[in-house]
Order: sequence, then C-alpha cells, then structure tokens
Amino acid sequence: MGRNLGLLLGFCSLIVGVAVADWNILNQRMNKNGLNITLKNYCEAWRINVELHNIRRFEVVPEECTDYIGKYMTSTQYKVDSEKALEECFIYLSNNFELTGDGKDAWIFDVDDAILSTVPYFRKHTYGGEKFNITSFEEWVRERKAPVLEHTLNLFKDIKGKGIKIFLISSRGEHLREATTDNLFEVGCTGWSGLILRGNEDEGKTLQQYKAEKRKDLISKGYRVWGMVGGQWTSLLGLPKAMRTFKLPNALYYIP
Amino acid sequence: MGRNLGLLLGFCSLIVGVAVADWNILNQRMNKNGLNITLKNYCEAWRINVELHNIRRFEVVPEECTDYIGKYMTSTQYKVDSEKALEECFIYLSNNFELTGDGKDAWIFDVDDAILSTVPYFRKHTYGGEKFNITSFEEWVRERKAPVLEHTLNLFKDIKGKGIKIFLISSRGEHLREATTDNLFEVGCTGWSGLILRGNEDEGKTLQQYKAEKRKDLISKGYRVWGMVGGQWTSLLGLPKAMRTFKLPNALYYIP
Repeated sequence: MGRNLGLLLGFCSLIVGVAVADWNILNQRMNKNGLNITLKNYCEAWRINVELHNIRRFEVVPEECTDYIGKYMTSTQYKVDSEKALEECFIYLSNNFELTGDGKDAWIFDVDDAILSTVPYFRKHTYGGEKFNITSFEEWVRERKAPVLEHTLNLFKDIKGKGIKIFLISSRGEHLREATTDNLFEVGCTGWSGLILRGNEDEGKTLQQYKAEKRKDLISKGYRVWGMVGGQWTSLLGLPKAMRTFKLPNALYYIP
Repeated sequence: MGRNLGLLLGFCSLIVGVAVADWNILNQRMNKNGLNITLKNYCEAWRINVELHNIRRFEVVPEECTDYIGKYMTSTQYKVDSEKALEECFIYLSNNFELTGDGKDAWIFDVDDAILSTVPYFRKHTYGGEKFNITSFEEWVRERKAPVLEHTLNLFKDIKGKGIKIFLISSRGEHLREATTDNLFEVGCTGWSGLILRGNEDEGKTLQQYKAEKRKDLISKGYRVWGMVGGQWTSLLGLPKAMRTFKLPNALYYIP
C-alpha cells in the first residue's frame, strides 16, 4: 500500500508538473532585456509604475492589462491596500498634532475613488480600456448609484468627530452638485463643511492647478489643511500642499 | 483504464484540494474590518503603501513581512517593475525635449538602489528586519562589491550618449568617495560629471534637505536638471525639483 501510494503521489506530481510547465511555456515570453516574464508580471509592473507616478497622462489602460486591472480593482488586495493607506491617516491623526479648537482645522477628501467608488462604471467600460467618455460618465453620476468606500467613510466620520472641518474637492462639474450631494447623502457621507466642484472659471485648468487653487483659497481663509486623501497624484501634488497627503491606489484612469 | 485514470485524477484533485483548503485555513485571518486576508495580502499592502509614500519614516520592515519583502526584492517582478520605471525615462527622453548642446543639460541619479544594489547587504540583515546599522553598512560599502542594476546602467549610458551631464548625488558620506568610485568603475559606471557625497557641512540635514540643496547648487550653476532617478521618495521630493522624477521600487529601508 505504501509503495502504491508512493507511485500514485509520484504520478500526481507528474501531472501537476506537466501542467505547470505547459503554463510556463504558454504564458511566459522573453522581454527585450532577456527576462522571462508573464503577462501578470507585465501588467503588475504597469500598475505599480502608475502608483509610483512614473507612468503619467495615460489615456487608457493597456488593452492586454484591462483584465488584470479589473481583477485588482475588485480584489481583496485592493481593499487591504486602501485600508492600509487610511490606517496611516489614523496613525498620523493620533500622533502628530493637537487641534486648536478655533474651527480652522481642515481636511480634504477627493470624491471619486476616495469616498465614492467609480469601479461599477468602469466595470461596464472594460476597466479603463476605453478612452474616457465624459458624457457617459456624467450620465452614470446622475444615477446617484456610486457605492461608498467604507474604509474612507470610517475615516471621514472619525475626522469629523474630532471637530476637524471636512472639505470635499472634486473634479466633477458644478452642474453635478445635486447628483453628488444626493449620492453622498445616500451612502451616509454627511456633515462636510464644503463641496467644491469645478465651475466655469475652472474650465481649461489642469486637475493639479484647479485643486491647488482651491487649497490656496482655503488656506487664505485661515484653514490649516492637516491632510488630504485622494486617488490621483495630480490631485495631491501642486502648491500649496496639504501638510500630509495620502494616495489611494487607483490605476483605472489618469486625470491630467 | 479510462475509469482508473478518472479515479486517479479524482484522487489527485482531492489531495490538491485538501492541501489548498488547509493552506487557506492556516494562513487567512479576519482583519478588523471583517476581510479575510492572508499574510501575503498584509505584506503586499505594506509594500504598496511604502511606494505610495503613505508609510513614511519606518525604521524596520515589519518582522512578519521580511520574507515577503526579501522575496520581492530578489524576484523577477522587482526587475520588471524597475525596468518599466526606466522605460518611462527612455520615453520621456525621446519625446519631451530637445537638447541645447550648451553643456548645461543635466540628469541626476541616486547611487544606492538606483545604480548599485544594496540587496546583497540586506540579504545578510533579514531584508530590512533589523534596525539599520551605519557601521556595518559602511564596512560593506568599503568591500566595493555592490552589484550594478543593469537596467539603470543602460539608461545611464544612453543619457551620457546624448551629451547630457550626469551627476550622482548620494547619501553616502564623503569618506566613502574612494570605495564608491572604485565600485562604480568596477561595474562599468564611468563618465559621470560629478559624484556628490555628504560632507561635514551636511551633517544633521535630512536626506530631503541635503538632496534639494545639491540640486539647487547645480541649478544655480546654470544646469537644467531634466530628470532624476532614485529609490527613496525623500531623495526626489523637496524644492527645487528635477523637471521629472522617477521613483524606483524599494521597500527595504527609509531614509528620513
């Protein structure tokens, strides 16, 4: 019996071995630097370089990576990565400063892919594989059905509870104010001190310029912007900066 | 025979199935937000948040993640991620500007984990799990045995070939000049226009302050710093900035 089991296990390893070897043969290729890489290696490298802000101004996710990006954006890993980012906010909030209580302590959140998830929209649009269509995106926004990112909402409530004023600065247009407010209310995101949307005067500005100007406005009104949470590097960079910035993972799109 | 093979395959699946299930039972746990996560999820989230610059000033890699980080830093994925970062430099260099030929075009590289790899050192020191010991690190530097990161060396040669002056700005101390120059020569990294090391006057400065001051010096001498490649966020941030920055992956240590 011992010998039979040994043979059986040997045969099993053989089958598994052949399967793995086949998979390697089918799915690896040698890249120009002589490395054997899989499509997963390639797409993961694309994603991490978006997060490192080495890849900028991309119009679409590379077609061969839309499956990979879609899987990531709907995975446990995406949730854990986001939670970890927000955990760092909690640590920063508890360690790094004392509030003055003069009503001038402030925090900024992006809306899309910081508080509300656009993943259901992009699921219907090949996870970033199609060129971004503002008309179809705004139709979706008007449906007011974007789900909340729970971990951000928890942070939002915690910050609000500390007496810090929260400002939402979004790249959405002013004409979407009602839809945005309704959607935020629907998911329990209430009690913010301002929802700043792109007005006519912001036409033609880059996201970085627009967001930086709105921070400047807040600072000129005497607010101390302790931190900012966003999903786009262009949302967080530019001067004046928040005292700390927290970048959530998001490789679905890039707003220049 | 068909039936026997069927039974055999069934048995194989059973063995594999049990093994996978066991692994899940043993290695998943529920985190405080109710997600079932593995240690790999946890460590990957730690790593990505270092790269997002959400986790800062860490003194050691979390003990339970040293294996994971070690595996990543010696993996094909690390190489592919780094190559992709440098490919973006190539794209930037070929698309974005024309050189003036006045000898004032410049590019900056970090030394450690940009041109020379410190992975062999950290392999002997639990991949970042031990608190950084400057004495033992400098002993290793004096051995002049750091291997080159081939993909960066290729970029270095390409940039040099375009007539752009290359400055290496390193957090290593001035007393390591000879060891550093020897090691760079040994791996074929020659023809740079300057190797800037920390002198006595830089004592007590943060890395960000030190690096920014050295960039300022170059700019005040009339150099246009087209780009910069480094492995630490603190190396790349701070004003004045290079016109473009490229962050290589590195979650082994953080230099504040």
